[in-house]
Amino acid sequence: MKPFNFRLSEVIKTKRSHLCVGLDMNPEAMGSPSTTLDELKKHAFKVIDSTSDLASAFKPNLAFFERWGSQGFKWLEELMDYFSDDLIIIGDAKRGDIGNTAKQYAYSLFAHFNFDAVTLSPYMGKDSISPFIENAEKGVFILCRTSNPSAIDLQNQPINTEMLFDKTAQLCVEWNENNNVGIVVGATAPKEISRIRDQAPNMPFLIPGIGAQGGDLKQSMLDGNKNGDALINISRGISFSGDLSKKAIRNAAKDYLSQMREIVDI
Amino acid sequence: MKPFNFRLSEVIKTKRSHLCVGLDMNPEAMGSPSTTLDELKKHAFKVIDSTSDLASAFKPNLAFFERWGSQGFKWLEELMDYFSDDLIIIGDAKRGDIGNTAKQYAYSLFAHFNFDAVTLSPYMGKDSISPFIENAEKGVFILCRTSNPSAIDLQNQPINTEMLFDKTAQLCVEWNENNNVGIVVGATAPKEISRIRDQAPNMPFLIPGIGAQGGDLKQSMLDGNKNGDALINISRGISFSGDLSKKAIRNAAKDYLSQMREIVDI
Repeated sequence: MKPFNFRLSEVIKTKRSHLCVGLDMNPEAMGSPSTTLDELKKHAFKVIDSTSDLASAFKPNLAFFERWGSQGFKWLEELMDYFSDDLIIIGDAKRGDIGNTAKQYAYSLFAHFNFDAVTLSPYMGKDSISPFIENAEKGVFILCRTSNPSAIDLQNQPINTEMLFDKTAQLCVEWNENNNVGIVVGATAPKEISRIRDQAPNMPFLIPGIGAQGGDLKQSMLDGNKNGDALINISRGISFSGDLSKKAIRNAAKDYLSQMREIVDI
Repeated sequence: MKPFNFRLSEVIKTKRSHLCVGLDMNPEAMGSPSTTLDELKKHAFKVIDSTSDLASAFKPNLAFFERWGSQGFKWLEELMDYFSDDLIIIGDAKRGDIGNTAKQYAYSLFAHFNFDAVTLSPYMGKDSISPFIENAEKGVFILCRTSNPSAIDLQNQPINTEMLFDKTAQLCVEWNENNNVGIVVGATAPKEISRIRDQAPNMPFLIPGIGAQGGDLKQSMLDGNKNGDALINISRGISFSGDLSKKAIRNAAKDYLSQMREIVDI
């Protein structure tokens, strides 16, 4: 039995890829206001087919499935069956609830949907995280310093000489007893990546915010991969690139991957 | 068009009830390890039938539906159709994501499932809340000081002379421009209820933590209803009371309601 963080590191090395393809399957991004669920389904399979050999991980974002209700969850079930076993599949769910409820979410995401890892919010503290980290083979990425403009509203609140996100990073280190806790830090906050890396050596980072959000790929790769691994998530920049063809999607993924390898090769 | 907080206040007055029945439909609570989805469905309808005239609100907790995947979401769709229009239905989802994704969650919870209000996590700041508060008729309850033991991990971090939850309360006040923002504060933290009420007069409180979690009903009712309304959520203490019969469920709800009316009548 390999702890999640160990397995993630192996996959990244084997595939020589820090690329995580985000599946934010937005119907509006398909270029027509009347996009159907079936069209989106086909497009998601196309993205997976075009990039599976290039990416170490995929990150389906649950919001884009839930917007379709039970049909959307059925689609997510089909999608989870479609991924090959050598990939890391991260459920971007950002759940957070009291222990009793968190246990149900953990069952949903790990046992029912079979994600390898999930994103979680830390606002409710350790007992909202515990049910997700009991099994070392499954991992979590905890929101620490996120990529959105209003991340600072709470995350940059001053706590003595530090900020709230520093406290979150320290809690993540504490919670990593089973070597299955990672940290979400946005590429739009490059200084914070370095600062959090100093506090959490050897823990994997999941770094969103490259592309549409304007994050800094070079600094994210350099600081994120110092003393640990960083998965760089690209969503719209790959899934909905160019004319939405296989070729355009694959070329976008190849281009991001070669940029990443130029900065830090493995 | 009535803003959510106005409508909530009217329903509470009309029904003379601060009771919110939480639907945490836990199969383990049915007394048999082999409880089926159909048995749980029937039980949920039984809880609604037995308490609809006593409660102002119901709060289905999405985790307990998601654990069944697409079948669970189908059940939630059926359940939402079952509620009568004079009730406030709160989706306990605790979502929180960047603007683009939050927009999809808002679509899911308000347009698809048709909740009147939802619970949200504040960790990612205003742009994770904005898509939910644009329509004044729909409401949000933002996690401020939660009822679980490890709530203090982040929420009680000191910020100058205050704590993080004070900052959250102040943000909730700022975000209440459309009169549709409420605050979640746990009955297990009675001093904090009073403290948050002082900072957020006239905003509705959603108070969980009574019953299994050991919260203080009297203090919650007194401080929660000072300068504003408080919905008191009871989940297991009603849904799974006694022998799980209609009578046991109704009696538990009646008992809680009469205790509440004794403390603060309207």
